[in-house]
Amino acid sequence: MTIKDVAEYSGVSVSSVSRVLNDHPDVSENVRKRVLEAVNALHYVPNNSARDLSRAQTDAIGLIVRGAGNPFFTPIISSIEKAILDAGYTMEVHQIPAGEDELAAGASLSRAKRLKGVVLLGGEFDYTAERTAVLDIPFVCCTFTNSFGTMDENAFSSVSIDDEAEAYRAVRYLTDRGHRKIAILLDSTHDRSISELRFRGYCRALTEAGIPQDKTLVQEIDYYDMEAAYRGIRELLVRRNDLTAVFTIADTMGVAVLKALHEAGKRVPEDCSVISIDGLEMSRYTIPTLTTLEQPKEELARQAVSLLINMIECRGGTAHIYLPAKLREGRSVEALSNADFQI
Amino acid sequence: MTIKDVAEYSGVSVSSVSRVLNDHPDVSENVRKRVLEAVNALHYVPNNSARDLSRAQTDAIGLIVRGAGNPFFTPIISSIEKAILDAGYTMEVHQIPAGEDELAAGASLSRAKRLKGVVLLGGEFDYTAERTAVLDIPFVCCTFTNSFGTMDENAFSSVSIDDEAEAYRAVRYLTDRGHRKIAILLDSTHDRSISELRFRGYCRALTEAGIPQDKTLVQEIDYYDMEAAYRGIRELLVRRNDLTAVFTIADTMGVAVLKALHEAGKRVPEDCSVISIDGLEMSRYTIPTLTTLEQPKEELARQAVSLLINMIECRGGTAHIYLPAKLREGRSVEALSNADFQI
Repeated sequence: MTIKDVAEYSGVSVSSVSRVLNDHPDVSENVRKRVLEAVNALHYVPNNSARDLSRAQTDAIGLIVRGAGNPFFTPIISSIEKAILDAGYTMEVHQIPAGEDELAAGASLSRAKRLKGVVLLGGEFDYTAERTAVLDIPFVCCTFTNSFGTMDENAFSSVSIDDEAEAYRAVRYLTDRGHRKIAILLDSTHDRSISELRFRGYCRALTEAGIPQDKTLVQEIDYYDMEAAYRGIRELLVRRNDLTAVFTIADTMGVAVLKALHEAGKRVPEDCSVISIDGLEMSRYTIPTLTTLEQPKEELARQAVSLLINMIECRGGTAHIYLPAKLREGRSVEALSNADFQI
Repeated sequence: MTIKDVAEYSGVSVSSVSRVLNDHPDVSENVRKRVLEAVNALHYVPNNSARDLSRAQTDAIGLIVRGAGNPFFTPIISSIEKAILDAGYTMEVHQIPAGEDELAAGASLSRAKRLKGVVLLGGEFDYTAERTAVLDIPFVCCTFTNSFGTMDENAFSSVSIDDEAEAYRAVRYLTDRGHRKIAILLDSTHDRSISELRFRGYCRALTEAGIPQDKTLVQEIDYYDMEAAYRGIRELLVRRNDLTAVFTIADTMGVAVLKALHEAGKRVPEDCSVISIDGLEMSRYTIPTLTTLEQPKEELARQAVSLLINMIECRGGTAHIYLPAKLREGRSVEALSNADFQI
């Protein structure tokens, strides 16, 4: 099917069809209508390969998803794609498992697809100039930033929530309601990444409330794995059956914790409160509904692309943005009664 | 950073570095080791742009995801990417909302990226030769097939579960346990798509068990939307508070139904059983655990890519494969007691 077929079907010249398809103003309404009818009837797709191919080589933005299968990322990926396409760029995606090197993946994709820039969705928090040297195009960290690294912050952009502050806020929500035996479920207290930052927030909230830290309330598990969270909380309950609240650093963990507590005969929130960070859709449908700090997923995506395009087009410099999470109150947290306070 | 820097750092010739990087056999173990050490130390990424770019133009497979954000697709996307890369192809992804035209999206991506073939993850079930004419490259339907269309089945491949048969199996699982007032939650009984096929399976199981169809037990909602499922089951309960079981055509709906039943004061499974199709990870952590027919997600992905590559490389023709789902028994279904049977 070519433009000639469209011209023949609609009974106008090839150049008229071309003008309609290229949105030229000098086309009569009648001709435009006939051409568009023909395009519809013939299911004609304009052959833009030459134009698009040159676009693909010059205007492609890469997206490296680190942690393929993480449900937190699913709506963010869609929003990033939309923002990239809306800005007139094309997108190239590559997904890697949570443990792999997103910088090397970005560099490799960049070589293969001649990217203008890359969005890293998930990654390490300790970049050095040496490590990021492999990536010689602009990049933006989406949902994380370089909290532990030494890299010059003018060399990249980032947009994320303030992990330490939001974790503090979640735990403070518990201490304000009288909880003192508050467990934390996280992947590691010293991963120089998201988990360590959220652990710091947990510690600060405890300290502020005059609650001494207690290692037996800290449960480390594998990263963001529901099965690991489920096993982790069961281990924790063997050790500390007296806990009154659990802070999980991700909603996926929170969902698994609700399940494990239920099976252990603990009612949520009467016997144990649970709070989390992320705000996944599924957390609206847990029993009880999970109380969580919802990340602004669409805004994180939108801003990440906007920051990157600013860097690519040299309209602006780099920037590091923290967006606030939004408290989504479910039914998984309850204030301790005065009687419990005494214990 | 160039290959010369690697040669200098490792103290070997540029041609030796090249041989190592290209996996030539005539390199001593000592040289190979020194070069790889240098590559690591310098974080060198081989500049394959010329080679990769020509690959990208000749060996790219497209993936159109119809229903971005559907958690059922998340693990399948990862498996498809892995299978495509393992086969030596590159992948180009485009995600579209559930209601949009996957054929047009595939055609557009094909023009822009010169695809060899395309995997349609989610799509319509009623293709005609005329509609698919826009897509002039091999394509495979993944998780669905052309049950309602007139298109020549030698013109494409597909891999999916047998939706009618699996729905029958799910409902039969309920009738075998004495249930007769069985509701179905689906997006439409006549969408000429997945929902209509599963509705047919529901009807067949009822008929076989001698249960007359009852329209008041059929609840149509928006496609795969948890919020819609939640509202749908609430509406249904107003009308038919006497139901003893619900079949939902997707796990996401099942999760929302468990929540709504709980809030309505109905215990699952004592007062109402729930069974579903999909087998999402989250369904392992609902309260109670959802009984579901698990789709073989990894195998669907693997076979889809394999079928497509057969078509691309002309090693084989087209094929249409049904894979069996696997019963994953949770705690959401219970047999009716004899007393209940009498009602």
